Formats: sequence, C-alpha cells, structure tokens
Amino acid sequence: MRQVGSVLWPKLRVLQVYGANTGIGKTIFSSILCRAFRRRFKKVHYLKPVSTGPQEEADDRAQPCSDRDIQAAVYDELRSYSTGEDSVAIVETAGGVLSPAPSGNSQADLYRPLRLPVFLVGDHQLGGIGTTISAWESLHIRGYDVQSVALFSEGRYDNHSYLKEYFADRHVHAFSIPPPPERRPDASDDARAMQQYYEASESLQDVTAFTNTFIDAHDKRISNIQSMPAEAVEAIWHPFMQHSERSANTITAIDSAYGDYFQTHTTQQNPSTTSEPAVLKPAFDASASWWTQGLGHGNPDLALTAAHAAGRYGHVMFASAVHEPALRLAQTLLISMGNARLSKVFYTDNGSAGMEVAVKMGIRAAATRYGWDAQKDDIKILGLKNSYHGDTIGTMDASEPSIYNKKEPWYTGRGHWMDFPTVKMSKGEWIIEPVIADEGEVKTFESLDAVFDISSRQTDAKAYRTHLDHDLAELHQKGVKFGALILEPIILGAGGMLFADPLYQRCLVEAARAYDHNPSSNNDPLAWTGMPVVFDEIFTGLYRLGRFSAASFLDVQPDIVANAKLLTGGVLPLCTTTASQSIFEAFLSNDKTDALLHGHSYTAHPIGCSVANKSLEVMAKLQDSADWKGFKGQWQGNEQLSTSAKSKQDEGVWSMWSEAFVKAVSHRSQVDSVFAIGSVLAISLKDADGQGYASKAAWSLRDKLLAGSPGEDWVVHSRVLGNVWYAMGAMTTSRETIQALEERIYNAIE
Amino acid sequence: MRQVGSVLWPKLRVLQVYGANTGIGKTIFSSILCRAFRRRFKKVHYLKPVSTGPQEEADDRAQPCSDRDIQAAVYDELRSYSTGEDSVAIVETAGGVLSPAPSGNSQADLYRPLRLPVFLVGDHQLGGIGTTISAWESLHIRGYDVQSVALFSEGRYDNHSYLKEYFADRHVHAFSIPPPPERRPDASDDARAMQQYYEASESLQDVTAFTNTFIDAHDKRISNIQSMPAEAVEAIWHPFMQHSERSANTITAIDSAYGDYFQTHTTQQNPSTTSEPAVLKPAFDASASWWTQGLGHGNPDLALTAAHAAGRYGHVMFASAVHEPALRLAQTLLISMGNARLSKVFYTDNGSAGMEVAVKMGIRAAATRYGWDAQKDDIKILGLKNSYHGDTIGTMDASEPSIYNKKEPWYTGRGHWMDFPTVKMSKGEWIIEPVIADEGEVKTFESLDAVFDISSRQTDAKAYRTHLDHDLAELHQKGVKFGALILEPIILGAGGMLFADPLYQRCLVEAARAYDHNPSSNNDPLAWTGMPVVFDEIFTGLYRLGRFSAASFLDVQPDIVANAKLLTGGVLPLCTTTASQSIFEAFLSNDKTDALLHGHSYTAHPIGCSVANKSLEVMAKLQDSADWKGFKGQWQGNEQLSTSAKSKQDEGVWSMWSEAFVKAVSHRSQVDSVFAIGSVLAISLKDADGQGYASKAAWSLRDKLLAGSPGEDWVVHSRVLGNVWYAMGAMTTSRETIQALEERIYNAIE
Repeated sequence: MRQVGSVLWPKLRVLQVYGANTGIGKTIFSSILCRAFRRRFKKVHYLKPVSTGPQEEADDRAQPCSDRDIQAAVYDELRSYSTGEDSVAIVETAGGVLSPAPSGNSQADLYRPLRLPVFLVGDHQLGGIGTTISAWESLHIRGYDVQSVALFSEGRYDNHSYLKEYFADRHVHAFSIPPPPERRPDASDDARAMQQYYEASESLQDVTAFTNTFIDAHDKRISNIQSMPAEAVEAIWHPFMQHSERSANTITAIDSAYGDYFQTHTTQQNPSTTSEPAVLKPAFDASASWWTQGLGHGNPDLALTAAHAAGRYGHVMFASAVHEPALRLAQTLLISMGNARLSKVFYTDNGSAGMEVAVKMGIRAAATRYGWDAQKDDIKILGLKNSYHGDTIGTMDASEPSIYNKKEPWYTGRGHWMDFPTVKMSKGEWIIEPVIADEGEVKTFESLDAVFDISSRQTDAKAYRTHLDHDLAELHQKGVKFGALILEPIILGAGGMLFADPLYQRCLVEAARAYDHNPSSNNDPLAWTGMPVVFDEIFTGLYRLGRFSAASFLDVQPDIVANAKLLTGGVLPLCTTTASQSIFEAFLSNDKTDALLHGHSYTAHPIGCSVANKSLEVMAKLQDSADWKGFKGQWQGNEQLSTSAKSKQDEGVWSMWSEAFVKAVSHRSQVDSVFAIGSVLAISLKDADGQGYASKAAWSLRDKLLAGSPGEDWVVHSRVLGNVWYAMGAMTTSRETIQALEERIYNAIE
Repeated sequence: MRQVGSVLWPKLRVLQVYGANTGIGKTIFSSILCRAFRRRFKKVHYLKPVSTGPQEEADDRAQPCSDRDIQAAVYDELRSYSTGEDSVAIVETAGGVLSPAPSGNSQADLYRPLRLPVFLVGDHQLGGIGTTISAWESLHIRGYDVQSVALFSEGRYDNHSYLKEYFADRHVHAFSIPPPPERRPDASDDARAMQQYYEASESLQDVTAFTNTFIDAHDKRISNIQSMPAEAVEAIWHPFMQHSERSANTITAIDSAYGDYFQTHTTQQNPSTTSEPAVLKPAFDASASWWTQGLGHGNPDLALTAAHAAGRYGHVMFASAVHEPALRLAQTLLISMGNARLSKVFYTDNGSAGMEVAVKMGIRAAATRYGWDAQKDDIKILGLKNSYHGDTIGTMDASEPSIYNKKEPWYTGRGHWMDFPTVKMSKGEWIIEPVIADEGEVKTFESLDAVFDISSRQTDAKAYRTHLDHDLAELHQKGVKFGALILEPIILGAGGMLFADPLYQRCLVEAARAYDHNPSSNNDPLAWTGMPVVFDEIFTGLYRLGRFSAASFLDVQPDIVANAKLLTGGVLPLCTTTASQSIFEAFLSNDKTDALLHGHSYTAHPIGCSVANKSLEVMAKLQDSADWKGFKGQWQGNEQLSTSAKSKQDEGVWSMWSEAFVKAVSHRSQVDSVFAIGSVLAISLKDADGQGYASKAAWSLRDKLLAGSPGEDWVVHSRVLGNVWYAMGAMTTSRETIQALEERIYNAIE
C-alpha cells in the first residue's frame, strides 16, 4: 500500500502556490517565482498536477483520478527532483483553495497529506480582501503553514495595503507586485509585453526578499524539527517515563499528522534508499495516540466544529447554566447507551477526573443508603486485578497495589480485587484461561461469538456464581463495606490489554448487586442494589469494541458509566460520567454540603461538547460504511449477516483485524496469545524474563516496526504494555490500511 | 454605556444576508426574499446599514463610524421594528463576508455581537465553489448559524449542483434560482425585465421553502432556548450544586457569548420596557466564566488558532514524543516566569490534575531525599487555612477539612494548615488584619504599594518569623514530615477570595525552607531545601494580578508552579506543572517504577498548547495597551510611573478596578471590606448569620445585578463565595466597561 507523507527534503525546497480565487494571476506569480529562484539555483522545477483551466468545468471533474493517485504522482515527481543538489520546486494548484479536485474533494484537502509550505496568491479584484482572507482561513484551519500572501497592486481597490497590514498582525508576510500589462489583441505583442513584464519582475525587491525568506524558513523548519527532541529533553517532563532512559534519540518529533499517520522525525530513522534522505517519515499511529484517535488526525470537519464552538462561545461557565452543545451531548449519550437506568450526565475534563467523580458518586450513594460514617468507615471498591482508572490519587486508590503506584506516598489501595478468567487465541483456538483455582481446565471455543453467547454457557455461569457467591459471602460476613463495583468491561486496557471473560464480568455484577446490607431498601427496578456498579468505558466505549456501549456485550446495565477518549474523536480532552437517577438522588437534601461538590473551571467546555456531538454523529454513520461491513464479514464468514441482524447488537462480535490474521499470528513461535475485538489488536509475546509490566519482550517488535525496512514509504509507531504489543485503528481506518498493517505485523514477528 | 446583544424577538424574525463575494446578486436575493416574506407578513423591513458600493473604496472606509456605533444603530432600528406584530427584517451586509467595514474590521466581525441567522449568497461565477465554501467557513468559525446558502444557477460552471451536495453533508440547506436577465442597454427595458424576473421569482418553490424553513427555525430557536433550562434539569448533573435547589428557574441558558458578555435567557428576567420582550439579554460575565476568560468570548483569533492546531495535528500522543506547540509553550513558560529554579514542564488537562502532579512531585522528592518510606510514613502538606487546589481526592487531601470535603468518604486531610493575616480595605483604609493571636493589632497602610513594600516592613517580618519559627520548630520536634509547602500566592481563590499578606507568605516560604531534616544534603543554590515549595498559580498567575507570575510579588521562587485557567485565554482546559531541576532529578534512577508514572490521554494536546501560545503572546502585548496604562495610572496617581519603571515588576500594584471605587465601596454600610488587585475585585459583605461558605449574604447582590433594572440593555452575571461577592474582568475588558460596572456595583450595594 502506498502512503505518501509530508514532503521535506533538505536540499529540495518545495513551495505550493494556491490562489484565493481563479483568474488572479497564480500562474504569473509561479512564473515570476521560478525566475527569481533560477537566479539562485540551477534547478527550479515547476509542477501543475491537475490540468489547468476552469476547475468547475465538467470535463475536469470527470477525470477518474483519485486523491491518492494524485498525491502519489506529485510525491514521486518531487522525489525524482530530490537529487541532493540545491533546488526548488513550485507546485501550482488548480483554481482556488477550495476548488474541487477531480475526486470532488477540495484542492486544499487533496494536497493536505503533503502539507507543503504555501504561497497564497491574493485577490486584487473588487471584493478581493474578503476572498483572500477567507481563503487564508480555509488553508489555516487545514493545518497549512502559509508563508506568504502576494497579490497584484491595484490602485482602485488597494486591497494590498489592507492585506499587508492584516497579515502582518498574523505573522504572515504579505506583499504586492505591479499587475501584468493589459492583454493586447495581437498575440506576439502580448507575448513581448509579458516578456518585458517578467524581466522587470527580476528587480522587484519584494520578490527577492520572499525567496530569501522562503529559503531561510525551509532551513529553519528542518533545523527546528531536528533540534526538537534535544530541546524537549531540556524543557519537558514527559508522562510515564523514566527519564534516565530519555535522550534526543528516544524522542520522536511529530511535525504534523493526517488521517492514520504521524509525520515523524527521529534521529534513528532507517537510512533512505534515495539520494537525499527525507526529513519526515509517515508513521501509522498504532496506539491511536494513546487510544484517543477516532476520526483521523487533522480532520477538517472536527477542526471546523471546534472553531465554530470557539467562535460562538469560547468557554462559558457551566455552574447553574446550560448551553446547547452540552445539553445535546448529554441527551445523545443518555439515548444511545440504551441503559434505562441512566439519567444524568456530569462533565469533567479527562478520564481520571471522570472516574474520581464515579467513585465519589458510588461510595457516597452507598454510604448514604447504608448509613455509613463518611469520616470513619473504611469504604472499599470491589474490582478486578490489573484494573486501571487513572492517575489522580482517588482513581489510583481504586486500583490494587501495583508497580504503577507502589512508590506513590499518598497511594492507599482501598478495595478488594479479584482474579478473573481471560479470553485469548492461542495456537489457532479461542480459549478461556481460568485463573480461579477450582476452575481447573482451559476451555476452548469454536468462535469468539461462542464466548459471548452467554445464555448458552450455563455450566460456566454456575461455576462462576458458586465461586463468586462464596467469596462475597465471606467478605460480607467480615463486614467489608463496598462503595462500588468498578469494572472496565471486556478489555482491561492499561493493565495490560487483558480480555476478561464477559460471562465472568456479568456474574460479578450480579453477585455485587446481591451484596446487600439492607435488601428491602428499594423497590425501584432501576435503582442500584448491593453496591453501585460503575463501568469504566473510557477505553472500551463508543465503538472501540464495535458497539456504542461495551456494557451491551455483558447484557447488564451499570449504574454509572464513564466515557472519554473516543468521545471527542481524538482532538481534545473531555469526559462524561453518566449516572442513574437513584445515584443522583442520594445527593439531594436541603443541605448544600450533601451535594457533589465537584467541578472544574472548563466543565462542559463548548468546544469539547461540540466536537463530541460531531464525532458521535459521524461514528454512528460509520456503522453502515462499506469498510465496517467488510470488517464484519471477515468474522462472520457471511457478509450478509450484518444486514439480516435485527440490531447492531445481534451482529455478533467482530474486529477490524481479520480472524484469519489473528489465527495466523497465534501460531508464530514468539507469540504466547493474541486477540482482536473492535479496533483493538493485542499480541502477548512470550515473556522469558517474566517481568510483566517491566518486561521488554515487546520492545523489539515495536522498534522493528518503527525502523521499517529500506524502501518502505511508511513505518508503524506503536506503544507496548510490558510483554504486550498492541495496535488499534481509528474508527475510519480503511480495510486496505489494516490489511497492509497485518502484513507488516505478521512479517515482523518470528 | 451601550452594550447591544444578540438579536432575538419572538415575532420579529431577522435574517442577515451575507455574500460569498461581491457582485453575486446579494441585493437581488434580498429583494426576492422581501417579496417572498411579504406574501406572508404585512411588515417586511429591509436594512442595509453601510452604504452600498465597492466596499474597498476609499470614501467608504473613510467614514468615522465605529463598529459599536453601527451595531447600536442596527440594533435600535431592529428594535423599532419589534412591535409585537409578526414581521420579518432583512439586514443586508456590504461586500463579502470578510470585506472591511468602515472601522477596518470585517463585516462578519462587525456584526458578530448581534449573531443574526445568516443567509449566505453563494458565488455562481468561475471559481465560486471555493469562494463560497471559504466564505461559509469564515462565518462558521465566527460562531454564526448559516441557515441557507443560495446562488444563481449558472449552466456553464454548475457551482450550485456541487454546493447543494456539499452543504447537505453539513446540514446546511443550499438551493439555486435562475439568474436575472442580462442587463439591457435601455434603462426602462432593463427595469421591465427585472420586474418580470422578480414576479417570476414568486413561483420559485425553493424560495418559498426557504421562507418556511426560516420561520420554523426562528420559532424552534426560541423554543429551544426557552426549554433548555428544563431539559438541563432532566439530563445534566451540574457541578457544585445542591440539586434540590435546582429548577428551570435557576438555570441560565447561554445562547452564545462574545467579548465580555454572555447572551442569556432566564425565565426570571426583568420585564422589558419594549412592546415585545427580547428573548436574550447580554450579561457581563463577571466570574470570567469561573476565572478562565482572558481574551474575550468568541475570540476569532483563538478560534482560528485552535482550528489550525486541529487541522495540523488533531491530537498526537505525547509519550516519548514532542510537537512544536508543546515545546514552545514549555520554553515560553520557563523564560517568562523569571524563576531560575524552574527547568521542566509537565502537562495535564486541568488544575486539579496539575496540582495532583505537583503534590506527587513534592512529596516524592522529599521522601527520596529524607529516606522516608512511601508506604508507611505519613507525609503531610504545609499550607494555609482556606486553601483550595482542586476536587480530585489528592488535591482535596492537600486542603484542610472543610465544608467542601467533610462528607466525602475518601477525603483524608493530610497536612498542617496555618492561619494567616489578610489584606483588605475597610472604611477607606488599607489594613492587615492579624489572625495570629500574639499579633494583636490591625495595621494600617497608606497604600497597597506600602503593603507590598516588603523590605520596609522589618518589624512585621520579625514578628512573623518569630511566630513561624516557633510553630515549625514545634512541628519539627514532633517529627512531622512535610512533603511540600503549598500556597496560592496573594489570593486564595475558592476558599473565599482571601488576600494574604505577601510578607507573611514570604516568611512562611523562608521558614519552610529551613525545616530541614538533613541540612547539609544539597549545596546547589537552586535546589529545594527543607521541603519543596509549590505555588498554585492556577488562579493567580498569568497576568491575573497584573503580572505574569504571582510569585514575583513575594520575591521568592517556588520549586514547583502550577498554571491553568488564563493559560488558554478562556477557551479549553490545559494545565502545566513546572518543576525545578532538583525536583526532576528526584525521579531519576535506573528503575522505571521510580519515575512519575502519571499521564493523561490528551497530555499536551496541540490545540490547548497552541491556544496557550497565542494567549500568552496577546497578553504580553496587553501590558503596554492604553487600557492597561489607564488602569495603572488610576492606582499610582501618576500616569507616567509605568513608563519610568525599570521593569513591569517595579510598577507597583494596580488593578483594573480603580482605587477610588474600592475606597467608595468600602464605606457602604453593607460592606465589611473590599479589595482589588489585577483583574479581581472582591467585596466581603457583612455576614449577619455568620455562616461562611454556606452564607447567603452575597446572594441578593448577585440576584439584583442579574435582574438589572428596566431599560438597561445589559445585566451582570456573577458568582458568589459565601458572603463574598466578586467580579473580574477578562484581560481585554476595557476601562469604559469597568467604569460602567463600577457604577452598577456601587449603586446595587447599600
């Protein structure tokens, strides 16, 4: 699969010429720039990829060229210019900034993956101030660096005077040059006049100044990218890192990102096969940027949505107030989760804060109902081993003592955490590996659907219930007070990508709901019983596993759910903690101090809520996309199944990663086990040293994929969790891309 | 002071006609729309505020009209149409969307405060697809609701076919109508042809459909705004609220915001004096949206900056990576804080998480140096009473037991908190009120500068030191282990807007640094001694008090500083925790588990970092603005002082609120004391019932200001903290606005 990236070679300086409108002299400016650069460099290339002429004419749009074909053609052409000699290439676009390309996509979107520095030709005509600034804004919100705006000086409208000042305020250099001579009726007269005009252009100081600025900016950009890792070592304290292992060599500089790919620079990149090594390399973002990426990096619709909210509100305080984006998002979540218990949405800024709120909601509701003393009683969390809910102290306390928290002076494990059986594919078979002593044997399943077919697994259920009832009865007898059961449904993420048996999690929920200190206390079927059940769906919710709600796989309804990460499509932080009415009512009284006195300055910030609304809308539509249908078909052996299913939840379990690939990987000798569900793939490598989180077993796979092989035009950027190497697609990652990744991954494993 | 707001009356429907370019038939469309509406309503008004003709012509721009004059004139004209009869008004703009208004500002920026629904006339000409979409994007990022895009159907370019599909995908209805007849040489011929054209337009179904849609959208918008409070009661769990007190009547619906003002709807607004009550009322955002607002709501530059980062990156994972916005922000903070100790910036998403990191940094550094056992030793925080650092459990634990946290089961106060003397103006005099028993008397100062003239207050310093040395010696003897001193420098915000004596805070820092268990351990003058000193500048930093760093007022340098709120100019959440090299080095070892294992998915999200870079750039420039010079002059009795000062820090203490006003307020009978510094004004009202945070003494002032008086065209939206009513401007709030507020506030207090 071809994947062109952002273009940047040290000695070939490439400039892209966009026009604020048609008919404003884009080609004349390109010619003048070519002339100017030729005075400096022996080689100056000029490229106009799409046929010239009116961009809206039908014959132009009828061309069958895909965006990717054009991107690849331009990239290859430019690469052929990159010979190691000092040179310049000018790439002229067709029509205006947002004029349609052959695919129907706009020029600016077509070329965005290359992210070339831009020379914007402004509009000198009547109305041209507005069209020029709007064109610049359209480029700017697509992540382009516009280096200069230039236009013809035109006495009557004097657009250039206004625009020079306007852009100077925005750190963009703008200049003007005299307009070309009026067209002469006689062709040779005209040619002569233009020739004189071009010759005269050589003495234009603004043009010369621009060429100097452009060359400096090019060099500066490269030196910036190259020095960023070392500068980061000086100024940044990175998350989750032992900094004794940090050096400029271990830091990846990310120049930009688009779709599934980062544009990266590392000091340790694989030597290029071309004469001049590219400064940037596209790297598939296989951690989906720490599990956030949903709709592609640099998504212009999300950028516009964010900007609209910023333009309409900025942020507006949420105490005793409401605004449309927050209200609509709350309503959408309440409806889409399909959980009749849920009734109120609380906003925070990230998963950790949202889980702090979930913990506060749960333990206070329990304390209130059972009459516990908030200051004296030791109220605990019931959960699973290896759970992870965040890094603030309250969420750390909800997780068992581990390597993550043992050196944290204020950490206090407040809970009881159970072992649990895990699902995996091993040597071509789906198995459930018991961790419960009296469960003895490994169970084999013919398909992942069979694992999830909870109603047919009566024997397993009985065994789980017996075991759980016994354990919980013992805890109950000891008087242990549980304020909440907290689960990551299906996949325990940061704890090592562990796939919990859904049947076990379901039985645990049922057992927790029977753990009652006062069973007659509530008759409302939607009220919590035993202890509030919290699902941490921050990682697993919102289509990550193929469905809106991860709870739906267990067919039980939590009392509290936290969502984040994919919520905002991979753009900015926001978290929701959604609670049932019976949880909400536990905080009602005539005393303000009984309230949930929690809040953040940017609670329910409109930008986050707006982007979330847009993301949820787009992801809902993806369910019926051709790519998703294809993914589903790979798991069901029947492409039609998805259309005959009564609802999305009847469709069975599926993944973007094909079952055939998962099976093949499971047979590799380095591999202990593997699984895929939704967008997630996790490969557990044999951990010879048995170090768990501290293990480095997966590091070599990660490093191999990041280095790539000579000649490959993209690499894979991934993260590991101990001996687990994992990857996940965005919700928009194509089948073609996943297939290419499968090949890379399979070949990189021994 | 006039303050026009967003225009919305129930029976007068207003539509604003923008053009994607000039010369595309804006006036023709306006005429056709007028005709169409006239078939439905008796009254249809047409308004074209700025003279027609080429918008870039010099004579137009020479008009001396300010934006505010034009806004007020349009608003007044529209108000005169709002008679309670069903009617429509069409406001046509001049030129294109971003064509300059007389002030030089763009049309779209000029009219943004009114935020009228928009009818965008698209460009049917060659290149018009691009100019139309760019124009729409420029409106969209300024927070406008574009209801429809319409253009002439033009066979050759067929722009309308493309645009209909394009906008349908974006939920914007687009349609086209036949173009007008070609201009005829004979004027009366031409008039007749146009007459026929207009008559024929009456049968255009798309036009009729638009008028219906527009009228429905108008009604829907109003019913949405009116029902939002009740819907919020259903779906939302609000921060910091006892929900038994919540009803639709207590929730403010915020339709949009611009500059210093919300556009609000409450069910309890003061009856209007006009025949038809406006649905929306501008309300000055006096809490600066929970202390976040820096550069005005709906700021188009910040919206564009956010969009550019979203377009260039979206979010990119920050583990072992670096991108330009995060790197530059870290470097700017390190330079601008003027604190040689600081060397590394850690990113989180909000103040609470950032203070959790600060606590973790501090206590781990102390535990490492002193060899404490992280699991067994009780490591405490030294701090001041009434401090507040956030709502996650770790930051709650760093604050003394209080009404905020006493019912929180997992709260454990881990610290020792000192009483402290406070600064206030009482009956016209600046005083320092001792809370320390052996300090006895109230001290009077001739000016706020005298309070801050630390070097001349030797007697006070000696008394403080004696007292502090005694207390800390006692704690030391008891073996109390302090992991950090945590202070909010100068102002303790959420704890009730308490103005701490800077000299006392300085002495406390010095005393804490002498609290050493192993005094010979470090010779680096920039290393921490005694205990790490953490400044929580989340509220007080970044120009809030008039200077970049609040620490500079104390003339001591903390080892760790947290910044948030104003950091992103009031747009979205981001927090930085900046630490000294000696803190950073405490986490270095060959063991990953010694690292600060903290991180958030959206750590250092590029949008937040980019907006922060822009905000810091703009705020730095504001220091030399005319408004700020005026503010400073009000406090120094000498407008020249600020220019003669060697540095910003030599300028003395000042506030946006004039000292004369503060003095006048202090004499009001309801007022106990008052202070102002930087953008902050805090009025402590006499608290007859003595309830502190639960007190409702300030509620009536808040409610009075929100209700406003009949005839006033804006009100004041504020928040209270117990018996303290406070207000703060954004960094861009003008002197004129502050003066108008001073008048309102003074008159509202008895």
